[in-house]
Amino acid sequence: MSFNTFGHLFRFTTWGESHGPAIGATVDGCPPGIVLSEADIQPWLDRRRPGQNRMMTQRQEADAVRILSGVFEGRTTGTPIQLLIENTDQRSKDYGEIAHAFRPGHADIAYHLKYGLRDHRGGGRSSARETASRVAAGGVARQVLAALAPEVRITGYMVRMGEQEIDRNRFDPDEIARNDFWCPDAETAVQWADTLDFLRTKDHNSVGAVIEVVASGVPAGLGAPLYSKLDSDLAAAMMSINAVKGVEIGEGMAAATLTGRDNADEIVGVRDGQPVFATNHAGGILGGISTGQDIVVRFAVKPTSSILSPRRSIREDGSAIDLVTKGRHDPCVGIRAVPVGEAMMALVLADHLLLDRGQTGGRRGQIG
Amino acid sequence: MSFNTFGHLFRFTTWGESHGPAIGATVDGCPPGIVLSEADIQPWLDRRRPGQNRMMTQRQEADAVRILSGVFEGRTTGTPIQLLIENTDQRSKDYGEIAHAFRPGHADIAYHLKYGLRDHRGGGRSSARETASRVAAGGVARQVLAALAPEVRITGYMVRMGEQEIDRNRFDPDEIARNDFWCPDAETAVQWADTLDFLRTKDHNSVGAVIEVVASGVPAGLGAPLYSKLDSDLAAAMMSINAVKGVEIGEGMAAATLTGRDNADEIVGVRDGQPVFATNHAGGILGGISTGQDIVVRFAVKPTSSILSPRRSIREDGSAIDLVTKGRHDPCVGIRAVPVGEAMMALVLADHLLLDRGQTGGRRGQIG
Amino acid sequence: MSFNTFGHLFRFTTWGESHGPAIGATVDGCPPGIVLSEADIQPWLDRRRPGQNRMMTQRQEADAVRILSGVFEGRTTGTPIQLLIENTDQRSKDYGEIAHAFRPGHADIAYHLKYGLRDHRGGGRSSARETASRVAAGGVARQVLAALAPEVRITGYMVRMGEQEIDRNRFDPDEIARNDFWCPDAETAVQWADTLDFLRTKDHNSVGAVIEVVASGVPAGLGAPLYSKLDSDLAAAMMSINAVKGVEIGEGMAAATLTGRDNADEIVGVRDGQPVFATNHAGGILGGISTGQDIVVRFAVKPTSSILSPRRSIREDGSAIDLVTKGRHDPCVGIRAVPVGEAMMALVLADHLLLDRGQTGGRRGQIG
Amino acid sequence: MSFNTFGHLFRFTTWGESHGPAIGATVDGCPPGIVLSEADIQPWLDRRRPGQNRMMTQRQEADAVRILSGVFEGRTTGTPIQLLIENTDQRSKDYGEIAHAFRPGHADIAYHLKYGLRDHRGGGRSSARETASRVAAGGVARQVLAALAPEVRITGYMVRMGEQEIDRNRFDPDEIARNDFWCPDAETAVQWADTLDFLRTKDHNSVGAVIEVVASGVPAGLGAPLYSKLDSDLAAAMMSINAVKGVEIGEGMAAATLTGRDNADEIVGVRDGQPVFATNHAGGILGGISTGQDIVVRFAVKPTSSILSPRRSIREDGSAIDLVTKGRHDPCVGIRAVPVGEAMMALVLADHLLLDRGQTGGRRGQIG
Repeated sequence: MSFNTFGHLFRFTTWGESHGPAIGATVDGCPPGIVLSEADIQPWLDRRRPGQNRMMTQRQEADAVRILSGVFEGRTTGTPIQLLIENTDQRSKDYGEIAHAFRPGHADIAYHLKYGLRDHRGGGRSSARETASRVAAGGVARQVLAALAPEVRITGYMVRMGEQEIDRNRFDPDEIARNDFWCPDAETAVQWADTLDFLRTKDHNSVGAVIEVVASGVPAGLGAPLYSKLDSDLAAAMMSINAVKGVEIGEGMAAATLTGRDNADEIVGVRDGQPVFATNHAGGILGGISTGQDIVVRFAVKPTSSILSPRRSIREDGSAIDLVTKGRHDPCVGIRAVPVGEAMMALVLADHLLLDRGQTGGRRGQIG
Repeated sequence: MSFNTFGHLFRFTTWGESHGPAIGATVDGCPPGIVLSEADIQPWLDRRRPGQNRMMTQRQEADAVRILSGVFEGRTTGTPIQLLIENTDQRSKDYGEIAHAFRPGHADIAYHLKYGLRDHRGGGRSSARETASRVAAGGVARQVLAALAPEVRITGYMVRMGEQEIDRNRFDPDEIARNDFWCPDAETAVQWADTLDFLRTKDHNSVGAVIEVVASGVPAGLGAPLYSKLDSDLAAAMMSINAVKGVEIGEGMAAATLTGRDNADEIVGVRDGQPVFATNHAGGILGGISTGQDIVVRFAVKPTSSILSPRRSIREDGSAIDLVTKGRHDPCVGIRAVPVGEAMMALVLADHLLLDRGQTGGRRGQIG
Repeated sequence: MSFNTFGHLFRFTTWGESHGPAIGATVDGCPPGIVLSEADIQPWLDRRRPGQNRMMTQRQEADAVRILSGVFEGRTTGTPIQLLIENTDQRSKDYGEIAHAFRPGHADIAYHLKYGLRDHRGGGRSSARETASRVAAGGVARQVLAALAPEVRITGYMVRMGEQEIDRNRFDPDEIARNDFWCPDAETAVQWADTLDFLRTKDHNSVGAVIEVVASGVPAGLGAPLYSKLDSDLAAAMMSINAVKGVEIGEGMAAATLTGRDNADEIVGVRDGQPVFATNHAGGILGGISTGQDIVVRFAVKPTSSILSPRRSIREDGSAIDLVTKGRHDPCVGIRAVPVGEAMMALVLADHLLLDRGQTGGRRGQIG
Repeated sequence: MSFNTFGHLFRFTTWGESHGPAIGATVDGCPPGIVLSEADIQPWLDRRRPGQNRMMTQRQEADAVRILSGVFEGRTTGTPIQLLIENTDQRSKDYGEIAHAFRPGHADIAYHLKYGLRDHRGGGRSSARETASRVAAGGVARQVLAALAPEVRITGYMVRMGEQEIDRNRFDPDEIARNDFWCPDAETAVQWADTLDFLRTKDHNSVGAVIEVVASGVPAGLGAPLYSKLDSDLAAAMMSINAVKGVEIGEGMAAATLTGRDNADEIVGVRDGQPVFATNHAGGILGGISTGQDIVVRFAVKPTSSILSPRRSIREDGSAIDLVTKGRHDPCVGIRAVPVGEAMMALVLADHLLLDRGQTGGRRGQIG
């Protein structure tokens, strides 16, 4: 958690800009002997890849990952794993107009103020392109989970786009992969398609979204109070994703509206030495430590700031400009944030599995 | 951000349990030459102190802080500052009943599952008593801010208790210190008092809250993308506070409901080389870096899990119990979270001031 | 390894100055369930305690350690352990003369140049008094080792004082605790006593020393290449002790004089799945990883800079002074560095045990 | 300082194996606006490059570095800098014999015991080839130093090969670059050539060396007591280099032989507000903080363990073998450690410059 590195023991460092020759991630602290090849990582990248349907930026990137180190004869060696993804479709010419002006609501001006210079091509380091590196690193984390905690399942999906929320009564996990929105509610997905087509083609606008990521099968005991709490690390992880403005665990902000009697997740029994809870308001985490229930995280993604509608702004020289952002931008960047949120969940869980194993040996307190 | 340490350069480590002899914090990396004495820290602790009115736990703690190191002749020396607060009113007998049973919604069971044993007295390490250490450390951070960024002002207040939200049209900053809730809206404060009296005395219940913390006068350029983003660190900081389940920056979760056109904080001019924005949907942070606008953070605190109403639970031996938690608990722990949220804001800002100064020298990019 | 914190997973932070009210250490990341009380730590502090014989400073300190947190009913809880040692015999008046002048060879001037101010009383933070905190933390590390790697034995002793080295043919481990020098060679101990009496009482001088610390029974596989190598961490650990100017592993500097044929530790068999080596030039570490052989570390302690002989120096105002340091100083501070070196060895090993367990699960590669 | 990352604020992470497709380093936390191109780094790599004369391994590597990120229009952007070096001359067939046997004195067996598997090709991650990544990262550090502390000069050279030491009376800095040994004493260089030719061609042997690295022009005040002391970090840095077994600062191990009177670096005046010392026994560091004097570090490199003379060892199956290591190995790996030691010095200094600037703002205490 310093500069471009995330994690305690299972750590990754991402590098690269939107329009440089390549981007990538260095995964360090990976356990040895884990089965790993490009084929284990590529499918996750393919899910995040731009240009797959009309709901996304039309930038075309193969996003082919190469493992440059840390794997020998199909297994991790315990040494750093370098994951490299070449940038192949940069088209820098698209961005000429914003080279010296700042998109309102975009990191442009913040980078300029901090660093005194910035790689304006495609947003440089602040581009959502960086999230491909996270997804690649997340692919390694998933292999670690598969080896050390094979019960873990991570599922991300969109629950809100703008004013339109899913109906949880129509929640169908099988639907998630069937539409362009990772939406578990088929009816809502149809509405979202209409809305987004309008925003994209008519209104020259964009829209925000809420993503939910659930991890089931997570063993109890993950999380290191007080400043490496599992929820604290998840909050940092999700808030580090481009355009995220809010993070919730379990009931999230709505916990404020509940009373203690309603919010209590009653414990109604014991199964295999683990507690059985009646409800999961807590989102699987108490006191910063996993309880064995589903880990439930939500995060809000703001609408893309790069839109075709003019917005008032300034140039680097301070002169005023009505800025229209051309180029190929996601009208709802939240869609592609779904695999990114899943990746961050996998990365945090893998890290906490190792951290807990280091401190406690992975032994669990007994009940009964 | 490892175990019980928070921060990159300006770091603090808290230690201590609710019913041990003392709690405290070690502040490390503090700049030298900062004016500091107990008198600079004590007022912040006094604001958080329990037992001040009927809305809080009736535990009586002097919360007198002692500086054991790192200060010489009234100034910091650049060496670690040990802040110690003795526990004086523990009354361990109150907690006998829950020594071997788990309060639903409380960290009890999570600590048991992870560590195999726990200090059950008053919640041990998971007690909100730990937040006194944060507030003390925050007092040091405030002195650092006063010296290095004297324009910074940090203001926390409660904006929601249960179903009742403040009316922003009645927002009066001077009102905040006048009522028992740190509420900026006098009318709402009266309603909250009624509600809480009912919950506390009649309903044997508790309730959640939303706290907002605003930092004004923060220089642009703080935040280290991508995994030490200012918002990412703030999210981790606030989520690490006991009972917090959601964190928002600026529009927060509501950003999902906006379009790009509405969410764009248009830049309408330049003043003293810094941009002037028309709005602040972003909450003062773009791309993880402060822009010079107010930093706006909100977090939700769940209702206290320790209530007098019986809830179903189990004992360590697995047997069922209908648990009633006696003892002295806050019916709305969110109230006392206000000074804690302010302290975390101060700590994150002081840390990022030093981190930025280390990397960039604190120079800012020019506009105009 | 940042400011005043050492360690990766098993971490400790020391705080406190020579003449403040107290010093101490916060040990974080300790496994839960480890047997621990003051009685487990005090004996190690007693070995380092000043004023025990005429070879040491005559400062009298009880060095009584108190555990303020992290232990419940005689066992560690997995939460931070605060160890506090009160300063009882400060006598600040002794140091009046050097309040505004710099002892040659002492940290005085370096602290002044860096921080612009310093706690001159007894050397403040740069005093060897800080090492009591390390020894206390080392006591916790030893309990961790006793639980997780009970075969480990750590033995420190002095092998050189000034020009006089021990004769390894007379090495007797039982002799170490019998003389005032932790010297394993009884004859040399007698010579050292004569030399030090002369330096102390007649020559008003001091002298350097070399300490050797050996850890046997250390499992193979500890060490995290490349920048948390076991030898790299040991080098940092020992070099962080006051007055240390050199660190060696195995052959150390003498490795430069050997040929590859002579330096090769031939592997001559396998016992219980572990290699058997003919020699141990490597000091138990290859490629930064322990091999199961004895870990052998040596470090050189320079002579105390605080002596009664006048040395040329300057005052803070730049004026010249012939400085004589009165007060109570060790004529050979190396003697009391023996238990400190042992403590640092214990702390590094405990940390690497947990770090390795986190990454690899503590499983070992098989031979045969 | 965790796994494969070194540094506090100016941090680098190396990755890659001897016979993988590439190796590299990610440099993070670099100040923005620093002039940087491949041409600034390549010369340092060329100095370390193998195959340049008969005293080195005959492996031929172009060691051409590519900057993949973090630089825009010739200046650093403050974002991570990825440095990639392709491996072009691996010849894996050379290593077939040691695929399943362990070279005595080599990391082979330690990696096997820790990780349960290893990339045996050319030593994999434990190969000295990794040091090219350090040298590349060191090139970036040098640019940072050039910008922030332009007085700094770093000079490394060999002072001992086996039993033969240089004569300091013949020390000529201009000679260092003229011979194959980075030897500042022309006569000794001739003797070393004879010795090494014998060892290499007749004796099938190798030999150790001592390297000295001096940094002049370093500002006072660098170093963060107590566990990020400048000497402690330098010790960790040098000990992390392959085959290093000892590290000395200033007098080093010889400090043990001195008396306090002789070891005192008397302060004899003030120049430009900085102290003037009569001698530099301390090697430029007191209390872990630089004093403005030359920083003097020495380290011992053991003889290469890969030699053509047979040594007793075992195979992975435990069977005995008389092992002869063919392939292309440095007969005195110390020679190529000279630019590596310089790089580590540059990296530590750049890091501590930023760390100090973060904490203190880079202001210095006044004298006079």
